[in-house]
Amino acid sequence: MRSWLFVLCLLPSLSFAAEGMWTFDALPTAAIESSLGVKLTPEWVTRVQHGAARLSSGCSASFVSEKGLVLTNHHCVRGCISQLSKPGRDLLGLGFTARRPAQELECPALHVQQLTGMEDVTAKVEKAVEGKKGKARADAMRALKASLEAPCSEKPEQRCEVVSFFGGGRHVLYTYRRYTTVKLVWAPEFPTAAWGGYADNFHFPRFGLDAALLRVWENGKPATTPQALGIAREPLKAGDPSFVAGHPGGTERQVTMAQLTWQRDVVLPSTLIELAELRGLLLAHRATTRGDKTVVDARLRSIENGLKALSGRHKALGDPSFFAKLVEEEQRLRREVGKNPAQAQKVKGAWEEIEEALTTYASFRDEHRLFALAQAFPGELFGHARDLMRAAVEKDKPDGLRLEGYTQAELPALQARLGSTAPVRADLEALQLGFGLRRMRELLGADHPLVQRVLGREDPEAMAERLVKTTRLDRHQTRLALFSGGMSAVAKSDDPMLLLAAEIEMEARTLAARYREEVETPIRAASQRIAEARFAVDGTNGYPDANFTLRLSYGRVEGWTEAADREPVAPLTTFGQALDRATGTAPYALAPSWIRARSRIRRETPFNVSSSHDIIGGNSGSPLLNANGEVAGLVFDGNLHSLGGRYGYDVPKNRAVSVHMDAILESLRTIYRASHLADELVPPVAVKVTAEESP
Amino acid sequence: MRSWLFVLCLLPSLSFAAEGMWTFDALPTAAIESSLGVKLTPEWVTRVQHGAARLSSGCSASFVSEKGLVLTNHHCVRGCISQLSKPGRDLLGLGFTARRPAQELECPALHVQQLTGMEDVTAKVEKAVEGKKGKARADAMRALKASLEAPCSEKPEQRCEVVSFFGGGRHVLYTYRRYTTVKLVWAPEFPTAAWGGYADNFHFPRFGLDAALLRVWENGKPATTPQALGIAREPLKAGDPSFVAGHPGGTERQVTMAQLTWQRDVVLPSTLIELAELRGLLLAHRATTRGDKTVVDARLRSIENGLKALSGRHKALGDPSFFAKLVEEEQRLRREVGKNPAQAQKVKGAWEEIEEALTTYASFRDEHRLFALAQAFPGELFGHARDLMRAAVEKDKPDGLRLEGYTQAELPALQARLGSTAPVRADLEALQLGFGLRRMRELLGADHPLVQRVLGREDPEAMAERLVKTTRLDRHQTRLALFSGGMSAVAKSDDPMLLLAAEIEMEARTLAARYREEVETPIRAASQRIAEARFAVDGTNGYPDANFTLRLSYGRVEGWTEAADREPVAPLTTFGQALDRATGTAPYALAPSWIRARSRIRRETPFNVSSSHDIIGGNSGSPLLNANGEVAGLVFDGNLHSLGGRYGYDVPKNRAVSVHMDAILESLRTIYRASHLADELVPPVAVKVTAEESP
Repeated sequence: MRSWLFVLCLLPSLSFAAEGMWTFDALPTAAIESSLGVKLTPEWVTRVQHGAARLSSGCSASFVSEKGLVLTNHHCVRGCISQLSKPGRDLLGLGFTARRPAQELECPALHVQQLTGMEDVTAKVEKAVEGKKGKARADAMRALKASLEAPCSEKPEQRCEVVSFFGGGRHVLYTYRRYTTVKLVWAPEFPTAAWGGYADNFHFPRFGLDAALLRVWENGKPATTPQALGIAREPLKAGDPSFVAGHPGGTERQVTMAQLTWQRDVVLPSTLIELAELRGLLLAHRATTRGDKTVVDARLRSIENGLKALSGRHKALGDPSFFAKLVEEEQRLRREVGKNPAQAQKVKGAWEEIEEALTTYASFRDEHRLFALAQAFPGELFGHARDLMRAAVEKDKPDGLRLEGYTQAELPALQARLGSTAPVRADLEALQLGFGLRRMRELLGADHPLVQRVLGREDPEAMAERLVKTTRLDRHQTRLALFSGGMSAVAKSDDPMLLLAAEIEMEARTLAARYREEVETPIRAASQRIAEARFAVDGTNGYPDANFTLRLSYGRVEGWTEAADREPVAPLTTFGQALDRATGTAPYALAPSWIRARSRIRRETPFNVSSSHDIIGGNSGSPLLNANGEVAGLVFDGNLHSLGGRYGYDVPKNRAVSVHMDAILESLRTIYRASHLADELVPPVAVKVTAEESP
Repeated sequence: MRSWLFVLCLLPSLSFAAEGMWTFDALPTAAIESSLGVKLTPEWVTRVQHGAARLSSGCSASFVSEKGLVLTNHHCVRGCISQLSKPGRDLLGLGFTARRPAQELECPALHVQQLTGMEDVTAKVEKAVEGKKGKARADAMRALKASLEAPCSEKPEQRCEVVSFFGGGRHVLYTYRRYTTVKLVWAPEFPTAAWGGYADNFHFPRFGLDAALLRVWENGKPATTPQALGIAREPLKAGDPSFVAGHPGGTERQVTMAQLTWQRDVVLPSTLIELAELRGLLLAHRATTRGDKTVVDARLRSIENGLKALSGRHKALGDPSFFAKLVEEEQRLRREVGKNPAQAQKVKGAWEEIEEALTTYASFRDEHRLFALAQAFPGELFGHARDLMRAAVEKDKPDGLRLEGYTQAELPALQARLGSTAPVRADLEALQLGFGLRRMRELLGADHPLVQRVLGREDPEAMAERLVKTTRLDRHQTRLALFSGGMSAVAKSDDPMLLLAAEIEMEARTLAARYREEVETPIRAASQRIAEARFAVDGTNGYPDANFTLRLSYGRVEGWTEAADREPVAPLTTFGQALDRATGTAPYALAPSWIRARSRIRRETPFNVSSSHDIIGGNSGSPLLNANGEVAGLVFDGNLHSLGGRYGYDVPKNRAVSVHMDAILESLRTIYRASHLADELVPPVAVKVTAEESP
């Protein structure tokens, strides 16, 4: 898509940088050179591509030492840190530093992937589907994808994926090198990583040390990773040209106005209202929680992050001028398409079909999300129950007929989840499940047959308490026994959570099927036709919507101006400002490690950075690179204006927020007594360590 | 306005009844006769007008005995019931029945008004403002209003008001008979009145006994009220033609699309998110509250009612077909206006001016509502502090220059509020104030100068706790002393809540002034021009927007059909269904009085009624009348579809919800041992009690 702002980024006169999440095989090098004065050589591009990484937790990362160190955000590995925590070992609350590799702790569910190759297979795809329509076309497409991806599956460290861009206008075979043994090396305290809490989230000026170090291992020792990007020797300054290499998860810059209106008026408001109530429940619960509050805080943080991110999206869609530009872009596309009668004929009715599918969905959305998506039953325990029941049912079917998530290839990951030894917090489970059940009754009414089936005459909160108290699915041994016992074990169990999952399974599947047939399929088909029309009009001049493939964004270290009557926001903060901001209470309390190190902390050390890079969720953990392609910072957030980035890029105000590399290095040395890690990142004498020399 | 559905209601072939909140001096009697088959005589109209009443709490009511009994909703007098409650006398939780007039309890803040006359003064207004513009016009208008209203002010029991309709196209002098001594006679338990809680609110089928009886007194004894409406001798049945005579508070069926978009995208979502979080906080707080939870429940109920009502409004505006009709109506108006060049010239730019004013407001709305509207400081204590400070400042000014709310005429009501002996709940105050302060920091950011001024380095919740703990404004003696002490007393006080109010007073006033100048005034002026244009096009064929004047709505006892594939909703529920629905826990727990009477309750007694009347907030407490104009029910709610009624009437689905009169009479007799009240409503032998015979 050539968005309404796209033309701007080609104007060399503009000092700020530009919209776009560009694939590495189609970088706008001329535009970059004219706007930033930086010429990207093919070597630069290859080196950065190989030094970037993505995590199975849906984040980005980078290789930062040749002995396997990987830099990412604390919030990208928070799941692992929680799982590794246990009574007496509160890694989340207190942080963690491995003094030597043997102390590193494995993150069982985490994988790291490095993009090693891209091959355009558009011609093969087009040939395979030529003249085919509907199901025949989809089948041919699936067969071709399988045949292209198959050779990769032979080696466990390799992974291939045929990815579609531009709504199916371009198809590329992506090849990844996969590291499956990943260990936690260093993480600061959660309150330090998330400093400023909900108030500062998506804000700038900002003071978060949202960083963590992992290490990939192979054959029982740290992996050799010569692809590591160097660490910048010069600190990044205001105005510096810079780059972000990461994996933006998804944008919706090419959806229709009906879909955006649906988001603005239905999905976002209802989700926000529910998150806000859940936040209130958790905040008040936190106040009366005795003992360790870190797990409650982490749960709160996820909810608050969602609340703020979705608020920002909603605000963007509710901004009349922002929305008008999106409307204008759709009208431009429809006008352009209309100039070509054949093309216009092909796409005729597509916009209306999407609108109709959403109108249909409106009539059963609440039932669908409550039962098919299990939003009436939030929490881990019901999730385990549904998984156990479904695994038992699906295991007896041929692989091709199974539900998504339960194929032979997916069962090991499921087993790992079920076997997690992380304790289940009964208080949070009861709170969330009670909320979900109450919400179900409120949305559907006490007289709805499904509500009556679930609740009977029981009170939602009382039922939640009872289920959480009586289920045994909080024990991983019980879960694993039921998993391996299969259908006969599950059928024999009288676990109340399993019984509940079974009670609504038929309706859940029916609703899911109805959604697929009446909503998802028609929208996908119509979107495909629109994408083809857009491709015919715009070609690949622009960048494709984000899809968790590696992208490069370019820009500068710069702040922004909120309003004509406000001071511009400066792009760098310092440790000193953070110390001044500390109040002694959350979310602005200093961790004990900081208080102890306080006198040694250099006040002028740059802490966080604002920069004009077009990023989105999934970019978390991306390296912020200087012109040499060295790691100069670590992307972890955006400002409030970045939240509308899902739908369009607001050049003057959308900013990425990163941890400055100096903050990471200095905190490792001064605060976390981890000079060995700082030295591994920036060897005191810059001697190249070759593969032969590694331990 | 002739809304897009207005024409429908003139078609006699339609079995259901119609849109419209009609003033008593312009009833569509022909349309009523053709649609309901009921001919309203002038006597019928006068009798119903005189038997209807409105309450100073913003509700409707009716006179139901010649000895001063007034019927209204429990939720309309909940404020009074709370004030009358004290430790050991939990009227809210346990209900109240006066066995004889001497036991009745006075509601200090409550007045009852009866509409006695309407005089069209449009010609006088037009003459007075002829040829005048801007301020001169406003001054002339104000002077005329004052001169017309003055003669009424002589008697304390009389009140006059010049009211504008159709956006200023019509002006009428309303005369009221005012009863200032109002006593509580009967109220059921709050959980019975609000049975079904949040889940059932705005739902139907419904089972709420949201009723209460008051009595107006004069000269130390029950007033003689020959205007009382009779009680229906025959129970209202499905299909019966019926009427609602009440005081709908406000509709926005004539605002512009820019205003509706602003509501849909900005005001409603932000309010909903805040109410939802507050609800969560209160729900979790309730769970850990020891002892009496009734006050928490009542607070929750208000928040939940707002949450649900505003959700319904938002849903209506987010419904593409509903919104499209509103857009269409604005386009029709603009087309029609365009046909008359002189009219078009006068109204030119008005729609755009409203849009611009809202864009301006968007840039300071958060500051305005947090400080000028005190949303950063929710709760009673800050309200008292601001009132005390402002009263002290304003009392020294001439009346005409004072802030609204602090004129000589308004001070007695203020003094009554400050002198209320109702206890202040410290836990709820701290919870709400902490929420407000935290919300302030989140919305404006920790770096905002006003946030820093208010919070310093203090934590929002900790500051709230401290303020609530240290202020003395929880004592009514302290408040009254400060009030009568005036400026010197207030200036000397070091009460922390007063100091906080003073700290932000300058900014609060500046923001309020900016709002008036840049938002309210331009919108009012432009709206006035649009109203004039609409009046020129449509005249008074339709009904004016609701404005808390007496209106008649007509319709039938009927349910509705939610969707083509659902069973129609039956219009009547019974006591038996309520007993079956009871679960033993809130919100479906039976009160002890019901449990005791259970075996004597007739299951077939009609309980709640759905009817096709166009009502809105303010109609609460309205009598539901049969064709004879007798009280056959008591309006207390609407269904979910009624919530969009603020913007337009959805004929097939919008329904009013009432308590059936039989439910009130039978519960008085069987459950509340108050046969004397039932007998007063429906004298066992129907002898007319004349004024001379009353005690």
